Amino acid sequence: MLEAMGRRARAAAKLLQNSTHQQRDQALELIAQALQNSEETLLQANLLDLQEGQALSKALQDRLKLTSARLADIAQAVREIKALPDPIHQLLWQDTRPNGLHIRRVSVPLGVIAVIYEARPNVTLDAAAMCLKSGNAVILRGGKEAIHSNTALVSLLRSACLKAGLPEDCVQLVEDTSRDSAMALMRLNTYVDLLIPRGGQSLIRSAIENATMSVLETGEGVCHIYVDKAADIPMARDVVVNAKCSRPSTCNAAECLLIHKDIAKEALPMIARALLDRGVAIRGDAACCRIVPEATPASDDDWGREFNDLIMAVKVVQNLDEALEHIERYGTKHSEAIITQDEAAKARFFDSVDAAAVYHNASTRFTDGGEFGFGAEIGIATQKLHCRGPVGVSNLTTYKYLIEGRGQTR
Amino acid sequence: MLEAMGRRARAAAKLLQNSTHQQRDQALELIAQALQNSEETLLQANLLDLQEGQALSKALQDRLKLTSARLADIAQAVREIKALPDPIHQLLWQDTRPNGLHIRRVSVPLGVIAVIYEARPNVTLDAAAMCLKSGNAVILRGGKEAIHSNTALVSLLRSACLKAGLPEDCVQLVEDTSRDSAMALMRLNTYVDLLIPRGGQSLIRSAIENATMSVLETGEGVCHIYVDKAADIPMARDVVVNAKCSRPSTCNAAECLLIHKDIAKEALPMIARALLDRGVAIRGDAACCRIVPEATPASDDDWGREFNDLIMAVKVVQNLDEALEHIERYGTKHSEAIITQDEAAKARFFDSVDAAAVYHNASTRFTDGGEFGFGAEIGIATQKLHCRGPVGVSNLTTYKYLIEGRGQTR
Repeated sequence: MLEAMGRRARAAAKLLQNSTHQQRDQALELIAQALQNSEETLLQANLLDLQEGQALSKALQDRLKLTSARLADIAQAVREIKALPDPIHQLLWQDTRPNGLHIRRVSVPLGVIAVIYEARPNVTLDAAAMCLKSGNAVILRGGKEAIHSNTALVSLLRSACLKAGLPEDCVQLVEDTSRDSAMALMRLNTYVDLLIPRGGQSLIRSAIENATMSVLETGEGVCHIYVDKAADIPMARDVVVNAKCSRPSTCNAAECLLIHKDIAKEALPMIARALLDRGVAIRGDAACCRIVPEATPASDDDWGREFNDLIMAVKVVQNLDEALEHIERYGTKHSEAIITQDEAAKARFFDSVDAAAVYHNASTRFTDGGEFGFGAEIGIATQKLHCRGPVGVSNLTTYKYLIEGRGQTR
Repeated sequence: MLEAMGRRARAAAKLLQNSTHQQRDQALELIAQALQNSEETLLQANLLDLQEGQALSKALQDRLKLTSARLADIAQAVREIKALPDPIHQLLWQDTRPNGLHIRRVSVPLGVIAVIYEARPNVTLDAAAMCLKSGNAVILRGGKEAIHSNTALVSLLRSACLKAGLPEDCVQLVEDTSRDSAMALMRLNTYVDLLIPRGGQSLIRSAIENATMSVLETGEGVCHIYVDKAADIPMARDVVVNAKCSRPSTCNAAECLLIHKDIAKEALPMIARALLDRGVAIRGDAACCRIVPEATPASDDDWGREFNDLIMAVKVVQNLDEALEHIERYGTKHSEAIITQDEAAKARFFDSVDAAAVYHNASTRFTDGGEFGFGAEIGIATQKLHCRGPVGVSNLTTYKYLIEGRGQTR
């Protein structure tokens, strides 16, 4: 069955690659309209998921839930994607060679993108809208918890494509939500150009391990903030509190505070107080626990752990080198920050830390497509190839070289 | 043992990432000098390989063989890589956001690159020089046929690094040339950021199937030339002969000629004559065999086959659509050409063909780093992610975002 979906996606991708920007934007506009016009149908489908999902955690039930306001937000997000410039058919570079050959590098869609994700029905829209904008056909494979919502949403997406003169197979949903269907999709490299796993670490690891096509690694963010001995302490406090507390479930939230021993006695009580006041549980190393009585001792597992919660690991380090070593060992190449007034320390941190985003005197929470000015993003890439950091619509493209001659031979 | 090599490569990569351009270029200059100063040692090591390789095919023995002239060529190639601009530490983009955050996108090395290859000792130098230029540590795993040559070459490379003040572990050779060592290297994703398999299709397929890190897919080139009904016939003949005959063993050589039925009777005899005169064996479909008495019937396997030899498959097609379908089915997304005077046919070919390089009225043989003006290349990428077409030193880099603030929070 997946083979047949792959073939249909490939055929749709062929038509999409030469579609006009206007056509793709019209499909997006129709989708935004339908999200609001079909509110009743969508909420009914969502209700079925919620009824079947009563055993799920409250947090998961909340992620799953659609409301009138949430549908309006999703429609707005689709319109923002529509407003972005066309990422395909753009001239990226050109040159005329000494032999007269004229070479152009032009952006084109990747082709077929598969997205495997979990309980959030809003991913269905984000992913489909970004793929459509960039001229890619998409095969969606959401979680079983959201199957009724996803089926209704994809039906809406397909009919919007059709009305805009695009093939409905631009968007397809794998209705089989078994583990087998995810595994089979990961091996469909004849038809799928890129796999995007969106969800927990076990899903991402499984994709890296099993996929035969390219995988866009996103998601895991074990972000550190290193407070240097030359830090501005109130600034350090404000940045740490923001990075930990403003939205602890996101991948750009900080999980671990590293603080230089020379400033720890003065700064740590102030930073800890602010965290504790916001309900953060502190898991400290021995030195931290001596300074902060409310801290509980961190276990080995707490270093390099993505808490996704109001919990922060705190370690007192001897110097910048120890901070860099800790980040190299436990970081996930997502976002890392140094707070310091010392330019030399900043420069060493910038040179040495290998991560998508390296911050000086700012919160890691800024690693985001919108904050970077890229518009919508489908995740934060923590790999090094193809693209790094916020993945926007232009990252869902590749290029080809178009070479024009007058019979040149070599 | 590979684990330990991985750790050493990672440590070397850390130092390399902040090395100066001058240091890396000095290492390359010392390598070029040593290639000529150590000629005797290198030729002796190569002689051992040649003695042990007497059962190999003549072609393989030739690939394996080093001579004084070939060493001079290799030294020259290293100096050409040295002459390229620094691909790392380059400012690629910057922006100041409304909140005052200053964001820079700066090119950085990938880290550690592994190259698995076969009998050519010159790949040892190409790969190491390109990795050094771009600030990457490299783990080389060559074929057993070239083990003595590679050991001598890598010893020279390591001592040049050391003399330039770089760690000798910038370049390491896996001396175990068993299949097991290749498989183990493919699973070393903790330490290796990119795997480049260079060799036959079975090696590349095995890497795609088994590697847990990103793989740079290069190599297989089943390139087609479509001679449209509106082609300039002498131009078509010259381009086809050049694309097939000028160096049939390369991946950018043409393997298959598709010719429009309306022009076949007039053009095919002339093109076939020129090919036959150059010693090319023609394997034709039924229509071709009727027109060209010297052609032998093509078997099903001959379509989509990389002959790497003076053999060409020839098919008469009904129209441009059939040519496009044939290319989609049998092409390898490498290089495809149309010969036509008809702008509309060219435009459809350019829009529809999904390949790294799409040509109009020119030979597919131009898909090459030097011909494109990029300098040295480590292969032609036939994948779609990260980079496509000739892979130069700048493609062996990634980037990071460096963000400077004054305590901004979100």
